[in-house]
Amino acid sequence: MKGKFITFEGPEGAGKTSVLEKLMKDIKNMDIEPVFTREPGGIHIAEKIREVILHKDHTEMDPRTEALLYAAARRQHLVEKVIPAIESGKVVFCDRFIDSSLAYQGHARGLGIDEVFSINEFAINGVMPDLTFYFKIDPEVGLQRIAKSSEREKNRLDLENLSFHQKVQEGYQKVLERFPDRMIVIDAEKSIEEVVNDVKTALKRVISF
Amino acid sequence: MKGKFITFEGPEGAGKTSVLEKLMKDIKNMDIEPVFTREPGGIHIAEKIREVILHKDHTEMDPRTEALLYAAARRQHLVEKVIPAIESGKVVFCDRFIDSSLAYQGHARGLGIDEVFSINEFAINGVMPDLTFYFKIDPEVGLQRIAKSSEREKNRLDLENLSFHQKVQEGYQKVLERFPDRMIVIDAEKSIEEVVNDVKTALKRVISF
Repeated sequence: MKGKFITFEGPEGAGKTSVLEKLMKDIKNMDIEPVFTREPGGIHIAEKIREVILHKDHTEMDPRTEALLYAAARRQHLVEKVIPAIESGKVVFCDRFIDSSLAYQGHARGLGIDEVFSINEFAINGVMPDLTFYFKIDPEVGLQRIAKSSEREKNRLDLENLSFHQKVQEGYQKVLERFPDRMIVIDAEKSIEEVVNDVKTALKRVISF
Repeated sequence: MKGKFITFEGPEGAGKTSVLEKLMKDIKNMDIEPVFTREPGGIHIAEKIREVILHKDHTEMDPRTEALLYAAARRQHLVEKVIPAIESGKVVFCDRFIDSSLAYQGHARGLGIDEVFSINEFAINGVMPDLTFYFKIDPEVGLQRIAKSSEREKNRLDLENLSFHQKVQEGYQKVLERFPDRMIVIDAEKSIEEVVNDVKTALKRVISF
């Protein structure tokens, strides 16, 4: 019995994390074995790679070096955590995956979606998600949500300006055009309860619960 | 004035390092500005990546993760050291570069030369060597040289068996067929003086000294 691989994508402030937390509680009582994860997912080698990427002194990091490091960390997380879970019949819910690299580094950072896709194809070696939820939100609304949130610690990407967040949205739009069958657009400006319901409804396309 | 980028390739025991050391002394008195380097070349980020690759506890490292990490370290060394030197008119001599990844990881480790080439194309972004010396040596002779050498500290690859070294040779042969114009085959079974002379003669194709 083969499991499923479901990813969640969208800009900062789209509410992915809150929705996944709610989904995690709701799904406990259902008849599937879920695994909730996000890169680097506690995988030792992937954590070490991430330390190199995020180290505050590494300001001389070239964007292509960074993209290759993200792909390397993705590979290791996939091999150690995602693939074994899928193969044992579990349903893997992953917060961000290949499409984040395509939208952020491929489009917003200007490396090229095709080029970033090519190194990620090498990394994933055919393991694409069965389904991807794209949380669509107006970049301004997303930024306002981030600014309002007191719980959330601001990260480097939260502080980028509006034009960067608009580029990220453009990038996701291009990714969406490339993978229309795999990706489901979720209106992330709705309330969290509505978004969770929309996700659950769409999930029935690939899993029965 | 644009400089040149010259790489040295071949299996362990082919004598690249000794030849490069001799060349470094000889070339001092010539009318070029040489830079001798090898990855990770003292580049801080590249060294950090290499620590992740070579850490003895990282036995669970997937071969694709490893190939992506090598490509990432290559990118950073290229951007910080090789490209600035070429652009200021220097002649860069680099011990191993993309062809090592193609022969070792692409062919000998079985990841596929095309696939490993594709992630390295992303890493080098068009900066291919002007000239590459391939030090050709019978794998058995190379292994005997390593075994005899008392100065040399054995590394992990030295201790691989003969069949692995034969696969590396096959890999280089395929790389040679792919890039016949860039690569010059050097008979590395000759004496070091003869090899140095052969290299100097061939160097006249791209630099005048």
